[in-house]
Amino acid sequence: MPVYKAPLRDMRFVAFEVFQADRRWAANPAFAEVDREIVDAILEESARFNAQVIFPLNRSGDEEGCKMVGDEVVTPSGFKEAFRQYAQGGWIGLGADKAYGGQGFPKMVTVMTDEILYACNPSFALYPQLGIGAALAMSQHADPVINQLYLPKIYEGIWSGTMCLTEPHAGTDLGIIRTRAEPLGDESYAISGTKIFITGGEHDLVENIVHLVLAKLPGAPAGSKGISLFLVPKYLVNPDGSLGARNAVSVGSIEHKMGIKGSATCVMNFDAAKGWLVGKPNEGLAAMFVMMNYERLSMGIQGLGASESAYQNAAAYAHDRLQGRSARGAACPDKVADPLLVHPDIRRMLLTIRAHNEAARCFAMYVSEALDNSRYATDAQVRNQAKDRVALLTPIAKAFLTDRGFDACVLAQQVFGGHGYIREWGMEQWVRDTRIAQIYEGTNGVQAMDLAGRKVVRGQGASVMNYLEEIRRVADELPPELQFCTEGLREAANTLETATQLLIDNSRGDAEFANSAAVDYLHLFGLTCYAHMWSLMARASVGRSEEFYRNKLQLGAFFMQRMLPEIHGRLAAIRSGAALLMSFAADYF
Amino acid sequence: MPVYKAPLRDMRFVAFEVFQADRRWAANPAFAEVDREIVDAILEESARFNAQVIFPLNRSGDEEGCKMVGDEVVTPSGFKEAFRQYAQGGWIGLGADKAYGGQGFPKMVTVMTDEILYACNPSFALYPQLGIGAALAMSQHADPVINQLYLPKIYEGIWSGTMCLTEPHAGTDLGIIRTRAEPLGDESYAISGTKIFITGGEHDLVENIVHLVLAKLPGAPAGSKGISLFLVPKYLVNPDGSLGARNAVSVGSIEHKMGIKGSATCVMNFDAAKGWLVGKPNEGLAAMFVMMNYERLSMGIQGLGASESAYQNAAAYAHDRLQGRSARGAACPDKVADPLLVHPDIRRMLLTIRAHNEAARCFAMYVSEALDNSRYATDAQVRNQAKDRVALLTPIAKAFLTDRGFDACVLAQQVFGGHGYIREWGMEQWVRDTRIAQIYEGTNGVQAMDLAGRKVVRGQGASVMNYLEEIRRVADELPPELQFCTEGLREAANTLETATQLLIDNSRGDAEFANSAAVDYLHLFGLTCYAHMWSLMARASVGRSEEFYRNKLQLGAFFMQRMLPEIHGRLAAIRSGAALLMSFAADYF
Repeated sequence: MPVYKAPLRDMRFVAFEVFQADRRWAANPAFAEVDREIVDAILEESARFNAQVIFPLNRSGDEEGCKMVGDEVVTPSGFKEAFRQYAQGGWIGLGADKAYGGQGFPKMVTVMTDEILYACNPSFALYPQLGIGAALAMSQHADPVINQLYLPKIYEGIWSGTMCLTEPHAGTDLGIIRTRAEPLGDESYAISGTKIFITGGEHDLVENIVHLVLAKLPGAPAGSKGISLFLVPKYLVNPDGSLGARNAVSVGSIEHKMGIKGSATCVMNFDAAKGWLVGKPNEGLAAMFVMMNYERLSMGIQGLGASESAYQNAAAYAHDRLQGRSARGAACPDKVADPLLVHPDIRRMLLTIRAHNEAARCFAMYVSEALDNSRYATDAQVRNQAKDRVALLTPIAKAFLTDRGFDACVLAQQVFGGHGYIREWGMEQWVRDTRIAQIYEGTNGVQAMDLAGRKVVRGQGASVMNYLEEIRRVADELPPELQFCTEGLREAANTLETATQLLIDNSRGDAEFANSAAVDYLHLFGLTCYAHMWSLMARASVGRSEEFYRNKLQLGAFFMQRMLPEIHGRLAAIRSGAALLMSFAADYF
Repeated sequence: MPVYKAPLRDMRFVAFEVFQADRRWAANPAFAEVDREIVDAILEESARFNAQVIFPLNRSGDEEGCKMVGDEVVTPSGFKEAFRQYAQGGWIGLGADKAYGGQGFPKMVTVMTDEILYACNPSFALYPQLGIGAALAMSQHADPVINQLYLPKIYEGIWSGTMCLTEPHAGTDLGIIRTRAEPLGDESYAISGTKIFITGGEHDLVENIVHLVLAKLPGAPAGSKGISLFLVPKYLVNPDGSLGARNAVSVGSIEHKMGIKGSATCVMNFDAAKGWLVGKPNEGLAAMFVMMNYERLSMGIQGLGASESAYQNAAAYAHDRLQGRSARGAACPDKVADPLLVHPDIRRMLLTIRAHNEAARCFAMYVSEALDNSRYATDAQVRNQAKDRVALLTPIAKAFLTDRGFDACVLAQQVFGGHGYIREWGMEQWVRDTRIAQIYEGTNGVQAMDLAGRKVVRGQGASVMNYLEEIRRVADELPPELQFCTEGLREAANTLETATQLLIDNSRGDAEFANSAAVDYLHLFGLTCYAHMWSLMARASVGRSEEFYRNKLQLGAFFMQRMLPEIHGRLAAIRSGAALLMSFAADYF
């Protein structure tokens, strides 16, 4: 039987001991009502509710999957009732705008409840998460009258939302979409086209589904500068909020996928469906990208949640499974064999996952703090610096946490040996379910290009240097007992600076250099962030005698010794450059 | 539609240009009938037959899977007829002992036909492959009368074979198996017990299934020194070879797995089933390990075949899919977008897979040559040296090729973006199917421990030093144009030597060091082998003007620049040692 227990002790350590979130909230009027007591209660309830209600549907949802019945999509047994309870618990609006019925909690809180949700059931999680994303884009760009009509319904979980971007021929390259929007003369538009890979495009959990659709207006400029964003509800909405006629949007089919089978991934057909413009004409991508920083962090959290769940199950198995003997001599001579945990290689795998999980959790909190500051800080300069930091680190939060989260799930599966390959143990599902997080919301290669190209080269590295300054200040101020952190962190910072300079210098004469280096640069950057996080966690743990803190220092040492040295291979790959890659003729491939 | 074309040009390059296999065969009486012409014909026919008959069943076999119908296992549609044709083509006995109806071709030939088979359909491949493995163990240990009765039937594909090792509580640790063998007084035994994860344990492809079963005799010593090997046919065999009564062996259930769904993985119940001893009492593991070197190489080939198929499909997609524009400006201004191939990061992924595939193919041939020498070399010293080399490199062939093969499938899937996650494209199946190869036939962690402990530390590194000597000789003799290979190869050799010395020195006082370092050591070793292979391929290509050879040099440079530097991080992890891993209390996990 799969197990999961929310790592509340570790979450509180990160939130309150490493980042002292409660002091930050106390100092910010936007969070006047947020304190440690209420957040503790939220975490306890999130842990209880998700473990009891959402987690048990993870395996069954995978086995059952979503089904098309006529024109309707039926979610797996139990999803509908669980969604109702989830909505009634107020979880959908937890971090949402108070003006539209949300509870306005900081990202530093919802990042933890999101992790718990994703760790329990990623397929289920996508239904509320997509609604939250759509609502966020609307709240900042749509007409307030529309928002008053739609958003409270989404936050209450009576309606849900989608993002309709991808078309059969247009994924990363949204500039070439074909979906059209014809003005109807009454401020509404007729939207026509086909969208694919639409998460939650159709399902039976809610009364109405609100689609945010990218489409082109007549005569719009070619490419990404001619894309507009439209609101297209499944049922038209009367001015009093009641449902009107069925709109001309329908599901064509659902995709058969490697994983997240409990999440309906739909082909959606818009046949002159009625829609309303969100934001300005031809500025749809910008409106869409508003919520991207939140969504992309959310995908990173999916990677972390999966990895935490996978770890807990692998650790439990390593305790229970008796196989072989300790190299030091039998540890349990009264038993037929020793538990797997006596074997160093089993520990190596578990600690690798755990050192990733704890750094990822800390990093997600660090980015969440910046997200909160970017929106709510009272000082404009703090807001702007935070925006810059968020822009820099978001691709890493998305891609690095999902790449490493996937690897972690594979490692956790490996701990189970042959049993890891059998469906009933649930480990292979984590591998299948987590794989998508490296692909959607912009593939991890696209994230890397966003980082290397837009966030680094375009600004001549200013944002990185700013971040490196902060890192080096941390390194300088670490106490002598944390020499291992100081050294690792300085080495990582120097390597990242070298790589950044290579990127900038080479990009002057070589438009392809950044793309050739991007993925290796992102991983080097991510490892540096983790070294930073481990230094912060070590700083919060040093000099404390409880085992909890001593273990933090040990795991930090494990990261510095065994995981961080990967940066050198990454730097070598970056140095290699684009010319070699491009020297092969196309027909070579 | 998935594509696959056997890479015959690359195979011939490796076999005939890098290793000059034909000259070796000409010099060995055991292969007097083997020449390049006949091998070319075999390769052509293997490519044609597998592409036409076996490959089309790969997707449908995954969708349909195996089913239990009453007490029988039904394989996916088409498998039965395809197996009949495969058997009639003589493929099962291609490398088998001529004394028992085999054709006696060298491993240097079957390693290529195996790759083609695995690239077309790994689920299907396991049915003949397991029979070949069982037959090999029998041919060397069973009574010749039994072998005359059984082996020709297996090579003809009228019967098949299995290995029954694992039990619910005993996987890696075979010393604790519970299956019993009671002597019946007539040279036969009553075998009782439950075996799990039995590939091809029951199916509808053949008339009889020959199980090789590990069991314990009454009063056998505890642990792995008290295990015997038994032959247990599904139907008893009359002295004239005709089938007699049904034996008391039956399938309990089939496993539901992540992948290789066309391969029946069975729980097998032995209820006082009649069996015959193979080899000597209590020496069953040794008999089983005879064929392990062949089987483990075969699993490595599964990883390679998958990776080659995944590459070809990803490359085709990168040609066809139009998305984004070249950073140098539109490459296809008449089209809505440029093909994916214009993006350096797409090329990085494709070249990473391809540099692995070509090195893996060359390495598999190198190990095959040693396998052939270990069995057929006329000079006893050559045979013994080859045995030592095979023992050293087999765990690498199994674990490194499957770890990297899996990673390659994940990369190839990534090239497809969202389409890679959808079942119909077939890319996610390669990921699911290949994952098992890292687990079965001894998990890759166990392979690494076999390498670090048994093959290196136990012999004080003699086998490694012997191999390093050969590598350095290659490095010394490379022409100056291949400076990039010389440098990479020397650096890899030095790093491997340092790591080997660390292993040996630290193992003196620390029984856990080898296990803590094993996986990183195996990957460092594997990368060094690849550097060796790329040097051999470069040596065979240098100074030749055709594009084929120039591309070999370029891809070798890619490996040296972008992939080999990983060795430094691996060495650092090895240095870290066991103490840190073991310093955590068990209840920490």
